[in-house]
Amino acid sequence: MKRVSFEDGIIYSFRPDLEPVTTARSGETVEFVCQDACGGLIRSEKDTLESLDLDRVNGATGPVRVMGSRPGDALRVLIRGIRVAATGFQSIAPKVGVLGDEVSRPSTKIIPIRDGKAVFSKSIRLPIHPHVGTIGVAPNEGSWTTFYPGDHGGNLDTKEIAKGNAVYLPVFQPGAQLAMGDIHALMADGEVCVTGIEIAGTIRAQIDVVRGVHIERPVVETMDAWIAVASAPTLDEAARLATHDGVALLARGARLPWDEAYMLASIACDLRISQDVDPWRTAKLVIPKSLMRRLPLR
Amino acid sequence: MKRVSFEDGIIYSFRPDLEPVTTARSGETVEFVCQDACGGLIRSEKDTLESLDLDRVNGATGPVRVMGSRPGDALRVLIRGIRVAATGFQSIAPKVGVLGDEVSRPSTKIIPIRDGKAVFSKSIRLPIHPHVGTIGVAPNEGSWTTFYPGDHGGNLDTKEIAKGNAVYLPVFQPGAQLAMGDIHALMADGEVCVTGIEIAGTIRAQIDVVRGVHIERPVVETMDAWIAVASAPTLDEAARLATHDGVALLARGARLPWDEAYMLASIACDLRISQDVDPWRTAKLVIPKSLMRRLPLR
Repeated sequence: MKRVSFEDGIIYSFRPDLEPVTTARSGETVEFVCQDACGGLIRSEKDTLESLDLDRVNGATGPVRVMGSRPGDALRVLIRGIRVAATGFQSIAPKVGVLGDEVSRPSTKIIPIRDGKAVFSKSIRLPIHPHVGTIGVAPNEGSWTTFYPGDHGGNLDTKEIAKGNAVYLPVFQPGAQLAMGDIHALMADGEVCVTGIEIAGTIRAQIDVVRGVHIERPVVETMDAWIAVASAPTLDEAARLATHDGVALLARGARLPWDEAYMLASIACDLRISQDVDPWRTAKLVIPKSLMRRLPLR
Repeated sequence: MKRVSFEDGIIYSFRPDLEPVTTARSGETVEFVCQDACGGLIRSEKDTLESLDLDRVNGATGPVRVMGSRPGDALRVLIRGIRVAATGFQSIAPKVGVLGDEVSRPSTKIIPIRDGKAVFSKSIRLPIHPHVGTIGVAPNEGSWTTFYPGDHGGNLDTKEIAKGNAVYLPVFQPGAQLAMGDIHALMADGEVCVTGIEIAGTIRAQIDVVRGVHIERPVVETMDAWIAVASAPTLDEAARLATHDGVALLARGARLPWDEAYMLASIACDLRISQDVDPWRTAKLVIPKSLMRRLPLR
């Protein structure tokens, strides 16, 4: 199996002119070996977010040029598995996170992973559910640090990007230039304190070029839903954009007039929060597959 | 069983000086007979939201004075059952709802309920899951139309306020003055188009006065979670407030230092959206009961 490690290539921004470190064919499965979101710099409870350069977080392994992909296509990235390290961490700091104003001093918690559970404390052990926090492609324009989410993907912090699920990303540049990292062993919707359980690990991902799927922003596929994922400077704007995208998909996919799709979304499609802490926020509209079997073609 | 109907009393605003139409003892179960959110004025697809006075929507049946409740207590309202009428509706209109700017003209859809399913179209039938959209008490100050959500409850549009679940409301005025209405046969998180399936019906609710539970805003109890519910002018602010409340509850209820509770929430408590369409928005932080068995005392 093809393998690409952060030692081969790691990026801290998604830019139109990304240079690939390797190449994959459509249909190929690639292993991405990833550092944790803080590049391994947080090793004990003495290390905190305040000592880090926020332009150097969420380093993403890659980029991988995907042969034959061109602007107007979509990339379907199926997460076949995520292996995580034996230890992760959470960190908080003043001014970051939903309650940044209430945090008096930076602190870090080291969280061992044992028998598939995160050992938060002696009495609190939570089953892990690893997902990929940062995954994206070369954008249409602009330079986006890997701390930002956007139309190109990036720091989506969407917990459904997990084993067995797929993310569709729009292709903006020839070869797409896929990179990923920022694994979380566990995270809840909102990621309210600014970290999930940040952890190093290896992602096995099957990459397919899909022609004729016109999407402007990421869409996640789970066993039972299509999820329109949108990011914007505020949660209010991200929620509006996710709703806009999701209702448009539902209208096309379920062959409903737009007005009907809008009403149907209001009773059958949950509007949710992926994360409320990154520089831009990410919201998602969850469309049950019972309403829409396939992702609609252009 | 005590029964109060919209014909006995219906309010269009929650105010400190509400006059009760009846009285209940702590522990008593009361039936609330409720109009739909539009007072029965939408009867066919010709009737639309544009013909309505938005200060006269969500009429709430009551108020009921709850004997012995006083400021500083909480009211626990357990929803024992909701019966809905045979027909409901959804309506959209320009400028309201998450995508109000994309709606070209007002329209209404009449939705029959058959065998526990909402007949959205010939091919789309969805199991109903009725909940109470508007439920509240006399506020501390100000006059809140029943279209608004707030610390007093009101138009919370929180789908978990359903059979078998309970909502805790802070008591601000002697006797609490409980009123409710705005039943939805079905609604998704976000209520993106501005309506669920709006429907008339009867709510059976057991009302208990709980002393020594200090809450500033509504908390919903389900079989497996405590949900801190908060409303504010924007979704961003509502999300912050729900997180603030939920983390404070978790710290007290799980006996954790605040910093630890904040981190734990980020990996185990989903931050979600109740509704993104009322004049104020409502968000919620979902705390699994596995982390916190009881609602913490003062």
